[in-house]
Amino acid sequence: MAFVHGGDIESYKLHYGREPLDFSANPNPLGVPESVKRAAVRAIETADRYPDPHCRALRQAIAAAEGIDADHIVCGNGAADLILRLVSVLAPRRAVLTAPTFSEYEQALRRCGAAIDFEVLREEQHFQLTEGILDRLQPGVDLLFLCEPNNPTGMLSDRALLLRVLRRCAAYRITMVVDECFLDFVDHPEAHTLKPWLCESPHLMILRAFTKLYGMAGFRLGYLLSGDAGRVRAIAGAGQPWPVSSIAQAAGVAALADETYRERTRALLPAERRLLADALTKLGFVVYPGTANYLLFYSGDPTLHIRLAERGILIRDCSGYRGLKAGYYRVAVRLRADNLQLIAALARLKEEAGWQSSASSTE
Amino acid sequence: MAFVHGGDIESYKLHYGREPLDFSANPNPLGVPESVKRAAVRAIETADRYPDPHCRALRQAIAAAEGIDADHIVCGNGAADLILRLVSVLAPRRAVLTAPTFSEYEQALRRCGAAIDFEVLREEQHFQLTEGILDRLQPGVDLLFLCEPNNPTGMLSDRALLLRVLRRCAAYRITMVVDECFLDFVDHPEAHTLKPWLCESPHLMILRAFTKLYGMAGFRLGYLLSGDAGRVRAIAGAGQPWPVSSIAQAAGVAALADETYRERTRALLPAERRLLADALTKLGFVVYPGTANYLLFYSGDPTLHIRLAERGILIRDCSGYRGLKAGYYRVAVRLRADNLQLIAALARLKEEAGWQSSASSTE
Repeated sequence: MAFVHGGDIESYKLHYGREPLDFSANPNPLGVPESVKRAAVRAIETADRYPDPHCRALRQAIAAAEGIDADHIVCGNGAADLILRLVSVLAPRRAVLTAPTFSEYEQALRRCGAAIDFEVLREEQHFQLTEGILDRLQPGVDLLFLCEPNNPTGMLSDRALLLRVLRRCAAYRITMVVDECFLDFVDHPEAHTLKPWLCESPHLMILRAFTKLYGMAGFRLGYLLSGDAGRVRAIAGAGQPWPVSSIAQAAGVAALADETYRERTRALLPAERRLLADALTKLGFVVYPGTANYLLFYSGDPTLHIRLAERGILIRDCSGYRGLKAGYYRVAVRLRADNLQLIAALARLKEEAGWQSSASSTE
Repeated sequence: MAFVHGGDIESYKLHYGREPLDFSANPNPLGVPESVKRAAVRAIETADRYPDPHCRALRQAIAAAEGIDADHIVCGNGAADLILRLVSVLAPRRAVLTAPTFSEYEQALRRCGAAIDFEVLREEQHFQLTEGILDRLQPGVDLLFLCEPNNPTGMLSDRALLLRVLRRCAAYRITMVVDECFLDFVDHPEAHTLKPWLCESPHLMILRAFTKLYGMAGFRLGYLLSGDAGRVRAIAGAGQPWPVSSIAQAAGVAALADETYRERTRALLPAERRLLADALTKLGFVVYPGTANYLLFYSGDPTLHIRLAERGILIRDCSGYRGLKAGYYRVAVRLRADNLQLIAALARLKEEAGWQSSASSTE
């Protein structure tokens, strides 16, 4: 049973006939905020009306939260919708991607027929972005996607390097799209976001989603920031007139107002991430020092996900990511009890299989 | 103040500072079914999960309701999403549209660079489709969109003519897309749908939406039926992985199960449509014999919509539709009290302006 995406609970249920404990998708483990539920329930009452095609109230709320003019914001049916729309508007002939990274960039680029150069991130450098990326940015390249922190590795790039990339993109007229969908899970997001460079960098676009930080994957809501209002209008006009449901619009406004939920998230996440990373390391896996709400690890066992699935736990098999091989897995950082359940299940599997203490020795 | 789409209540509110009585959009006047609200509220609880990318439960429910195999169904983020996706997959070089008709077909075709031949529907034939459409269907044409009943006219085409169109499209390998989004409001939908021809006609596609019949415009949910499972897969794969929110999926399943709501709609609509048509005729407008939950009428006054808007009532100015001129308007059929309010407002305007009893005499 192969799962194409994380969080494909319905496929799991069809195959195994029960609900899994899902570590394969990465929404906030606190679930849908109560404030968001209340706003969504209210919105349902008048959902016989068309949504505001321009998402005005939501864009105003995002503008206030991000300190960005509303004319520089486009909302979409999840960040995935915006990736497709921006690629269709920019129509790049040549693009640069890292490998590994979130697969939707490549999907969107293939669909518009773009040639893709891959900057392969090295295992021995913990899949960290290096200066090699600068050499990829040559005249003739139209578009660069970077995911910060990267999915599925959880690695953040060095800020000085990112700014060199930004300048090189400006010099060669390359649009630089930075996907910051997971950035709010990082310890000091304000020290990492490229948002301060938006206004002076019309070639920079930043993607953000409600999916992850606010546990809203089922609502479908993301947004794009750009200092170039003309491009914003073009991307807004590239889809259907009503991409974002009225329920998602209302939910987004409520989410942005919920500072308590964000505080609870910040209070919870670092300790749970450490707990999980330490336990996985002790179990003999190679764990990468991810900064987000998920961890990439390497096990010599290419069937680990299947054996966990049989025990009711779904993790993300990363063998399908370009640049990763079988044996790489991504797990979400969840609440304490769930994390302990995953650790216990892995410990039992290890016992049964008589694993070695180091993953590399099983290769 | 120009409104690009019907139901743009937010633009109205920004301009006039209050809530309008909205006759410009056409959802079911009974509003969101209670069964749908309950299902949506339940779905919000677990909306931190990704939606099922394949909409399995919903497609099963549609399959049962429509008597069509689930492999022949694609769900989308409203019918508008499916129009864009099917056009991007079929990539027609030449297409045929009627004028007037729903503007999203032309928008989608322009975006992919298709040439468009327009079959202009004549006022003197009540904008009814005629045999002229057959002459448009020539070798080299790739795609035909028909809207049944047509939007904004409300006219249904003669069934024998539709079947001739279907055969001619087969002969010339033209894909025929029939948008039946409003068909359920018609008196005997089963006598008009082309569904029985789906299996034997791989070149036929039928669009349907939850937007209108179930008063669910704010949820964003539509579907496409095709006898060609390969095309269904291609269209399903042409968008992002999660086009339909989990809330809309759950809402759709509940809507299909709500026979009571459909019966209430059928019991209500014909009488209200007649009441409105009779009153508009008595007021001196030219009213077209629409069969759906809206009526097209002609008034000599190109500013009627503005004068109504100033009085708190929003109607659809149809001057922006290709094939219609200023003075054409579409109004939704709403509940009795609302319909009477519209009629009273029009009567007052007529009194104030000292209108003639016939619209044509004001030209």
